[in-house]
Amino acid sequence: MSKPVLAIAGGIGGAKLVLGLSRVLEQGDLVVVGNTGDDFNHLGFAISPDLDTLLYTLSGLADPVRGWGRRRETWKFMAALEALGGPTWFRLGDADLAMHAERTRRLAAGESLSAVTEALRQKLGVATRLLPMSDDPVRTRLRTSTEWLDFQDYFVRLRCEPEVREIAYAGAGAARAMPQVLDLLRGDELRAVVICPSNPFLSIEPILAIPEMRAAIAACRAPVVAVSPIIAGQAVKGPTAKMMRELGVEASAAAVARRYADLLDAFVVDEADAGAILPEGVARIIGRTLMLTLGDRKRLARIVLAAADSCSAGARAAERKP
Amino acid sequence: MSKPVLAIAGGIGGAKLVLGLSRVLEQGDLVVVGNTGDDFNHLGFAISPDLDTLLYTLSGLADPVRGWGRRRETWKFMAALEALGGPTWFRLGDADLAMHAERTRRLAAGESLSAVTEALRQKLGVATRLLPMSDDPVRTRLRTSTEWLDFQDYFVRLRCEPEVREIAYAGAGAARAMPQVLDLLRGDELRAVVICPSNPFLSIEPILAIPEMRAAIAACRAPVVAVSPIIAGQAVKGPTAKMMRELGVEASAAAVARRYADLLDAFVVDEADAGAILPEGVARIIGRTLMLTLGDRKRLARIVLAAADSCSAGARAAERKP
Repeated sequence: MSKPVLAIAGGIGGAKLVLGLSRVLEQGDLVVVGNTGDDFNHLGFAISPDLDTLLYTLSGLADPVRGWGRRRETWKFMAALEALGGPTWFRLGDADLAMHAERTRRLAAGESLSAVTEALRQKLGVATRLLPMSDDPVRTRLRTSTEWLDFQDYFVRLRCEPEVREIAYAGAGAARAMPQVLDLLRGDELRAVVICPSNPFLSIEPILAIPEMRAAIAACRAPVVAVSPIIAGQAVKGPTAKMMRELGVEASAAAVARRYADLLDAFVVDEADAGAILPEGVARIIGRTLMLTLGDRKRLARIVLAAADSCSAGARAAERKP
Repeated sequence: MSKPVLAIAGGIGGAKLVLGLSRVLEQGDLVVVGNTGDDFNHLGFAISPDLDTLLYTLSGLADPVRGWGRRRETWKFMAALEALGGPTWFRLGDADLAMHAERTRRLAAGESLSAVTEALRQKLGVATRLLPMSDDPVRTRLRTSTEWLDFQDYFVRLRCEPEVREIAYAGAGAARAMPQVLDLLRGDELRAVVICPSNPFLSIEPILAIPEMRAAIAACRAPVVAVSPIIAGQAVKGPTAKMMRELGVEASAAAVARRYADLLDAFVVDEADAGAILPEGVARIIGRTLMLTLGDRKRLARIVLAAADSCSAGARAAERKP
């Protein structure tokens, strides 16, 4: 095993780059910290959408068209639930349900979310280590002009339609980061920290809202490289650009870089944003960031790793100076 | 609507006669009290196997071959759960899961089991009224030579293999019967109480273990007719005969009649048991009790109702005497 890479990721967009990284790194060299701010309880199930998307993507079970859930899924449970008048706004496939049932069962038996995630990872044959951002609950909530909404109410039930005025990560201030992740960040072995092209507000910042996480990333010796989720002012998928505008932030790659400025050594922008003006001290890396194919994912992973390695080389050169 | 009939039933055997009764009575004239001693919590679901078997049977959703669960069921959830290392000893079909999820959701929202059952009945278009024996939890437990077992552990996980020494109905002593059922039993409108050919220990006696239920049945003016679940010393299905032998009770129709003797006006035995000696005061009705077809179910229902009506006529004749 060579030096590990730590990836910070949300769901769909993040999972694409995570898959690319897992394919270009040696097996076991990738450690992923997944967002749990979207987690919620529904029909008695403990549901962790981003962890599941990462596990499904890495195990090859993900549905490539829908973008979430499992391929070759069936919907018999959902149809029967609808016939009984049950809530159907959150779609649960028959096989996907097993993940939630097994997670719920293990949590009820006293296992931590990280232990459950580790067990599911092994059962699905995923070599990449995956850790929740915390074993403590953190819940992303959004304030509209009229009310505070739970994340899934906003994201799924209301299809991101309400205008967002404010975002909170309930519980983040008191949540502890995972010790294994802090050890990696504080040690000398880490090759890079990669902040994946996930929604900053909904996927990355819930993780960074855990004080230990942000502080450890800011202090770590390994280079920190982020990939822009915005291409030419647009989000590849989801409400990122819409939310940025609603929150009074310019919908641009540069604006995303500014949110992470204190953490970053390098920022990868799309060729369409080659002229982006980044914060001082953040190297601008230009590449194709749209990931349509597995080849795209691997190529972007190599760009990110090369950026990190050149930061390291630069830092080592700087250290050699008197 | 004519005079109502109250049926006391467990799962599969009871549901057969209940279906027959529902087909020969006018719509809405049948009220069923279902056993909830088998209820349990599994994977976070509140599961009521006998109520579901009754609802599936009455709605035409029941699987006619397996005897439990839904017809045209699929097992994708179960296969995925097995792949994750989850518990698979209790088989949950994809559509069946929706019943448990919706029941669990409604109970968690504060509804009573009877209110949930009523909602599910209406959604499934079942005209027969169905009530749990109580809104309070009662749990059937079985003592073997070495330990006390929860019902489903004994019945499903261990396939009724352990020898049973003792049976308890935890919570029954403090459980309240349903007021609607007590009103029926105490009123003048009831045409008959029918104790279905279910397992006495596992399906009928948990219901009778609720003090208000047994007292109200014993005191009711309507005739009480039971149907033997034993034919020529054998149970049609399930462990009834085995359990009777283990508990030191003769495995016979007459022995079942003796268990209900204080309640009964008439007892229906199979033609194979035409010579059964019943307790004094219990009329012996001989008929074909094996229910293989819908025709069998309806014919047995008519035999039971005729027996009840002749008891009533006899009672009225006796009342006319000075």
